[in-house]
Amino acid sequence: MSFEKNMTSVLDHIDGRMEQAQEHLFELLRIPSISTQPQHAEDCRQAAQWLCDDLKSLNMRADIQEVSWAKPGNPMVVGHSEKPTGSVPHVLFYGHYDVQPTDPDELWKTPPFEPRIVKDETGRSVIVARGASDDKGQVMTFLEACRAWKDVHGSLPVQVSVLLEGEEESGGENLLPFLKAHADELKADVALVCDTAMPDRVTPAVTTSLRGTVAEEVEIVAASQDLHSGMYGNAAANPIALLCQALSGLRDDEGRVTLPGFYDGVTVPDDATREQWKRLFPNDATLLAGTGLSIAAGEKGFSAVEQTWCRPSCEINGISGGYEGEGFKTVLPATAKAKVSFRLVPGQNPDHVREQFRAYMKRSVPADVQVRFTSYGGSSGFAVSRQSAFLPATLKALSEEWKTEAVTIGCGGSIPVAEEVRQALGMDALMVGFAQADDRIHSPNEQYGLDSFRHGIRSWVRILAELSTLSV
Amino acid sequence: MSFEKNMTSVLDHIDGRMEQAQEHLFELLRIPSISTQPQHAEDCRQAAQWLCDDLKSLNMRADIQEVSWAKPGNPMVVGHSEKPTGSVPHVLFYGHYDVQPTDPDELWKTPPFEPRIVKDETGRSVIVARGASDDKGQVMTFLEACRAWKDVHGSLPVQVSVLLEGEEESGGENLLPFLKAHADELKADVALVCDTAMPDRVTPAVTTSLRGTVAEEVEIVAASQDLHSGMYGNAAANPIALLCQALSGLRDDEGRVTLPGFYDGVTVPDDATREQWKRLFPNDATLLAGTGLSIAAGEKGFSAVEQTWCRPSCEINGISGGYEGEGFKTVLPATAKAKVSFRLVPGQNPDHVREQFRAYMKRSVPADVQVRFTSYGGSSGFAVSRQSAFLPATLKALSEEWKTEAVTIGCGGSIPVAEEVRQALGMDALMVGFAQADDRIHSPNEQYGLDSFRHGIRSWVRILAELSTLSV
Repeated sequence: MSFEKNMTSVLDHIDGRMEQAQEHLFELLRIPSISTQPQHAEDCRQAAQWLCDDLKSLNMRADIQEVSWAKPGNPMVVGHSEKPTGSVPHVLFYGHYDVQPTDPDELWKTPPFEPRIVKDETGRSVIVARGASDDKGQVMTFLEACRAWKDVHGSLPVQVSVLLEGEEESGGENLLPFLKAHADELKADVALVCDTAMPDRVTPAVTTSLRGTVAEEVEIVAASQDLHSGMYGNAAANPIALLCQALSGLRDDEGRVTLPGFYDGVTVPDDATREQWKRLFPNDATLLAGTGLSIAAGEKGFSAVEQTWCRPSCEINGISGGYEGEGFKTVLPATAKAKVSFRLVPGQNPDHVREQFRAYMKRSVPADVQVRFTSYGGSSGFAVSRQSAFLPATLKALSEEWKTEAVTIGCGGSIPVAEEVRQALGMDALMVGFAQADDRIHSPNEQYGLDSFRHGIRSWVRILAELSTLSV
Repeated sequence: MSFEKNMTSVLDHIDGRMEQAQEHLFELLRIPSISTQPQHAEDCRQAAQWLCDDLKSLNMRADIQEVSWAKPGNPMVVGHSEKPTGSVPHVLFYGHYDVQPTDPDELWKTPPFEPRIVKDETGRSVIVARGASDDKGQVMTFLEACRAWKDVHGSLPVQVSVLLEGEEESGGENLLPFLKAHADELKADVALVCDTAMPDRVTPAVTTSLRGTVAEEVEIVAASQDLHSGMYGNAAANPIALLCQALSGLRDDEGRVTLPGFYDGVTVPDDATREQWKRLFPNDATLLAGTGLSIAAGEKGFSAVEQTWCRPSCEINGISGGYEGEGFKTVLPATAKAKVSFRLVPGQNPDHVREQFRAYMKRSVPADVQVRFTSYGGSSGFAVSRQSAFLPATLKALSEEWKTEAVTIGCGGSIPVAEEVRQALGMDALMVGFAQADDRIHSPNEQYGLDSFRHGIRSWVRILAELSTLSV
């Protein structure tokens, strides 16, 4: 059978069993595998077991592997297909089975772990559930593509290994040591990562750069107990005020991060790239569409898309202190804390950024006030080698499936695996995702389009076929 | 019987029944009358009923009077003694029966509404309970003094009216309209307020100035839903960052509040007063003793005691936004909010401060971001007329009870009744309190010394006797 015929029969098979594929995904979505909340540790393990069983059903050798480098955590799921005959590439597919917390729960229209199909505001049919898009739905596009190849032809066109992480949403500190410890087992020719979004509804893309992250919790401890703000207000240090003052000093009037050396090694993308991005997002309001906002808030001199795809940033992800309940309490609290994250681009050093942040916060408080820190991990920014032979093959497959020319884009999110795969396994990672900007990942009513799911599965079928034509 | 003999027998009577007085106070302390939490509305009403019954036991005409000017709230308790024969003064005693919330609950060593006697760190016997000091214990010093006069002599030496409020800790917006509506009933020669502290363990004081307050909740609303900080970080407005930036701009580098016109009408106390205060608190660490802090945090050029007693201030009493739970969530939240209060001194206009604050916050955010406000009341600062004949009589009685010369002091707290009594009833309010700076009012493990309680009762016995000698 020809390459083309081989593939077409697999694509047809997929279209014939979309309902089963969707019901199968729903099983996984029903497991509340929130990795950052310790009470969901067993749920994470259940999701891992479900995926391990699924890999076995694809004729893979699969197992659950414990992790306890940084600290004991949610296990990895690892699977390997048979090595096909002939000199075909070996790919390592990466995804994650853990999900974000669901708060604020009252904003979910339906329970986050009871997936269902609804029409969104634009009339698209979407799957609504926590993890529908990030990353369970995306993981299953790849596994369903493998299942279709297996169902139709009994084997896969390339050699496939699968690695599914359970701590991507909670720091992922075990991933790098795990990759290093299992380098012999996991080393392939290229990694394929499905955890990114398309730039719009119709244009497929390979994400070739990602921002890294540094995540810190900082707590300011002033008085030894809460004080009455009448009796002590003005005279006693207010930890909320100190926190606000320090955090607001992290950016200057131009929106630039003020930590010493923060921009060392940061490069500006070439004009051609900036032009391509400008065609995708002609103005800032386009990128911010659906958020209720329209003005780029960050670093002056860069468009909204540049601010998210290629410029480092600093965000405050949470803050708390004093009386937060109903009514008013004139308390002068003893402590206040914030969760702060930095998004990094290639060239920046996460350790250096963390050190500078901590030194800055310590400098910001008076001598009788303490500052405490908790690290929630860090990772470098990432950029794919433009010389990779796998990149044009993947762009070709995507262009054919979506009937629109595939582009290379950046992504503001942190997917540490890309940089860590390069570091531990010495290979490139191609990030191919089918999510949409309005999927509300990390927010209430997360969704994943049925079109994303179907074309996603079909895209992987074509990508695996294209990659099988490359000599390695 | 002579004045002296009359009073001595009352004082002896008090010393003979301290245990009963203390057990009686415990009954009141067991009622969780937290006024800012709607679920405790019935408890507040129960405390009011308990006090109304107690006033009746003192042979007063007493009743519970509903309030619903600002909004329906916790009722006032009002009582009147018989008018004694002869031309003696008429005093209006004010206190409040509501208490602050108890959070953080985990820091209480014993349950907040199960009062008990313990030895504090310094070996003093203290009553520990929410409201022990603020203000139930202080209220009962006056009522026990009245009871002793009644028990021994069958009547009081002056004419006494009592007004007990139930919303002092939650804005107290019904008090001024209530005073105005009941001016005929409540008008007396002077008001006596027991809701303040002594400057140290041994020096009795009349508080002759108080700070007023303006309390506001401010919420910043940016995106229409929570966003992923990777996908939108930098480009989308971060409401926590905007809030921190705006709040930190409320004070300049000198610790001065930056709102336009904030210091208009504010006067500096005379050198004699500053010297007297310096004797009470020789350095900033003295005032901050027990807080774990030692450096005056507020306006430069003023000592810690001046910063709290005579300088206006701005405090952030609570802040919240984004992910506040365990672990880390790289969310870019849609909203963030803070509770902000200003302490005002005589000469400042609370309405003007509120307007300036709101205008400032609105100016501080970009055009695509909204700001919302909730008012939690306001009051002017207050200073007693130094010409009042009641002031030296009260200082004399206090000096005799405590065997230390009584002083006049300021207080950083807001006791709006003092200014409101002047405004509605045209009379002065003398603030005489027996609390201590380390009573932890508004904090876990609030306490009231048994010595405060006993000398407080005895002080009121003497004050009533002294006031009875004044002609009106």
